[in-house]
Amino acid sequence: MGGDFGPRVTIPASLGCLEDNPNLKLILVGDQSVLETELATALVKFQGRLSIHHASECVGMDESPSKALKNKKDSSMRVAINLVRDGIADACVSAGNTGALMATARFVLKMIPGIDRPAIISSLPSIYGHTHALDLGANVDCSAENLFQFAIMGAELVKAVENIDNPKVGLLNIGEEDVKGNEQVKAAAKLLENSSLNYIGYVEGDSLTAGHVKVDLIVADGFVGNVALKSIEGAAKMIGSSLKEAFGKNLATKLAGLIAYPVLKSFKNRIDPRLYNGASFLGLRGLVIKSHGGADVLAFKTAIKLAELEVKQDVIRKISEQVEQALAQSTRA
Amino acid sequence: MGGDFGPRVTIPASLGCLEDNPNLKLILVGDQSVLETELATALVKFQGRLSIHHASECVGMDESPSKALKNKKDSSMRVAINLVRDGIADACVSAGNTGALMATARFVLKMIPGIDRPAIISSLPSIYGHTHALDLGANVDCSAENLFQFAIMGAELVKAVENIDNPKVGLLNIGEEDVKGNEQVKAAAKLLENSSLNYIGYVEGDSLTAGHVKVDLIVADGFVGNVALKSIEGAAKMIGSSLKEAFGKNLATKLAGLIAYPVLKSFKNRIDPRLYNGASFLGLRGLVIKSHGGADVLAFKTAIKLAELEVKQDVIRKISEQVEQALAQSTRA
Repeated sequence: MGGDFGPRVTIPASLGCLEDNPNLKLILVGDQSVLETELATALVKFQGRLSIHHASECVGMDESPSKALKNKKDSSMRVAINLVRDGIADACVSAGNTGALMATARFVLKMIPGIDRPAIISSLPSIYGHTHALDLGANVDCSAENLFQFAIMGAELVKAVENIDNPKVGLLNIGEEDVKGNEQVKAAAKLLENSSLNYIGYVEGDSLTAGHVKVDLIVADGFVGNVALKSIEGAAKMIGSSLKEAFGKNLATKLAGLIAYPVLKSFKNRIDPRLYNGASFLGLRGLVIKSHGGADVLAFKTAIKLAELEVKQDVIRKISEQVEQALAQSTRA
Repeated sequence: MGGDFGPRVTIPASLGCLEDNPNLKLILVGDQSVLETELATALVKFQGRLSIHHASECVGMDESPSKALKNKKDSSMRVAINLVRDGIADACVSAGNTGALMATARFVLKMIPGIDRPAIISSLPSIYGHTHALDLGANVDCSAENLFQFAIMGAELVKAVENIDNPKVGLLNIGEEDVKGNEQVKAAAKLLENSSLNYIGYVEGDSLTAGHVKVDLIVADGFVGNVALKSIEGAAKMIGSSLKEAFGKNLATKLAGLIAYPVLKSFKNRIDPRLYNGASFLGLRGLVIKSHGGADVLAFKTAIKLAELEVKQDVIRKISEQVEQALAQSTRA
């Protein structure tokens, strides 16, 4: 029910994913009567793979997380997360209110033992392929220990979804020299240096997309990570609009645009933010994927497919095991 | 002498600016013998407007700021800043080591009374024109009071260089709602709300280049501001390289690129980072402009022209007066 467009986006995206993956099963959680009307044909077509689970309420996009948690016990996001807790669903995908989704997920699913705070991770297009970054806004004022925990969890996720053995982990900072940064970052660097992670040192903001060395995972405080992500989104939007403006100026430029169209199209596909939609909540005892609220059908499909991949790769179990191991190591040390 | 290319860039850029502005006078500070050889003809051509001031040392790009400050008392940047202190120059422009330049400027010029820390400000291309942002990396862990002081100084600079009366000031945060952010940002918001500044509230990272409302000045902690700036630089680089790659793929795409060349060129000029080169140090009793270390001739010219504009607009005096006024107000309050 969530996101800026509700079932108008989530339903066609869901049906598209069922088409694409014959092993996928989806439970759509929300107002039964609305969903039944919309899904009449689909329920027959995807019999056994598509079902509806009724939820009488819906959290508004601007609702306060604490109020949603307290007052809307039958909201679609709460019920969907309950299904994950009860083992009925393997993952919850939502385009709804981020704060409410995080608060609800944390309350219902509980934290992985050893992790103090959940974090939000997502991937970005980079000149090397993809970079994953966390935390993208679940926390402000992270301690060194928090950053270290984010690194452990993030590295495990990157291993699983990118299918690589030893992801390169960087710590987001304002320079690469040892003296740079605030106290939390400096202390986190020490923890990472002494860990079994493939820690490559401090990286700067440009490393998220086009640094001088490849980095697979970038760890940051949620305030910094969120600002960085949105700065990149803004830059892409500004550049895109400049490009559009340049080609739209007059008849000659429009003609040039027509000729260059296939090239511009393939360029756009490479950096299309819809193909990077879907942020995972890490640190919880269950899988929750947050889609951008403004996601269209393609973008929401990307978020569902991310959930499929993370379920297939058993990401939550791997992270839990890794955290347990890291804790055991630090107890021994 | 500074920057990645030294006099190879700074000299042609200086001569170019002297060509462009017949009222400009430049003092080139550095190794006299090197400069004399390079400038033989120019010293005649620009007689009375171009001179050399000898400095026997040069701060390396990777040298520690404290060591440079302590051991290199005759470095080109130190001597250039001395000229500003002594009223012989109106501004110092350098492509050298940022940390050393800031430490030296702070030591030699001293702070404007009432300002606790200097900040770095620069402008960025946005869909609305330009956005100015500070602090871009002089400080980590800024207090609410620091952020407030940055806002006062930044607003005065924006008024002067953009020629506008009442610049819109935003505070960089991870959301626009009151509950969002860390304690420093929330406390800074209170100070800004009660000030005479045209404070528009919290803005997110995308507002630096393409927010949903126009903002003239964005205030942030130096850690966050630096990461945001470099994230934008990285995104622009990644997008530029994707575009180049798409047009370079095969003969057909190359042909399309040839036809679209004038359009792509005009697009590139709009967002060319060289046309935004030059960051001003604010809070000091004298004008110091930092050029990107990797600046080419065009970029370094942009930094010199920024200095010309800020001198012409008497930015340092205006900021000092504004700070004094704001202090008097807060004492009365």
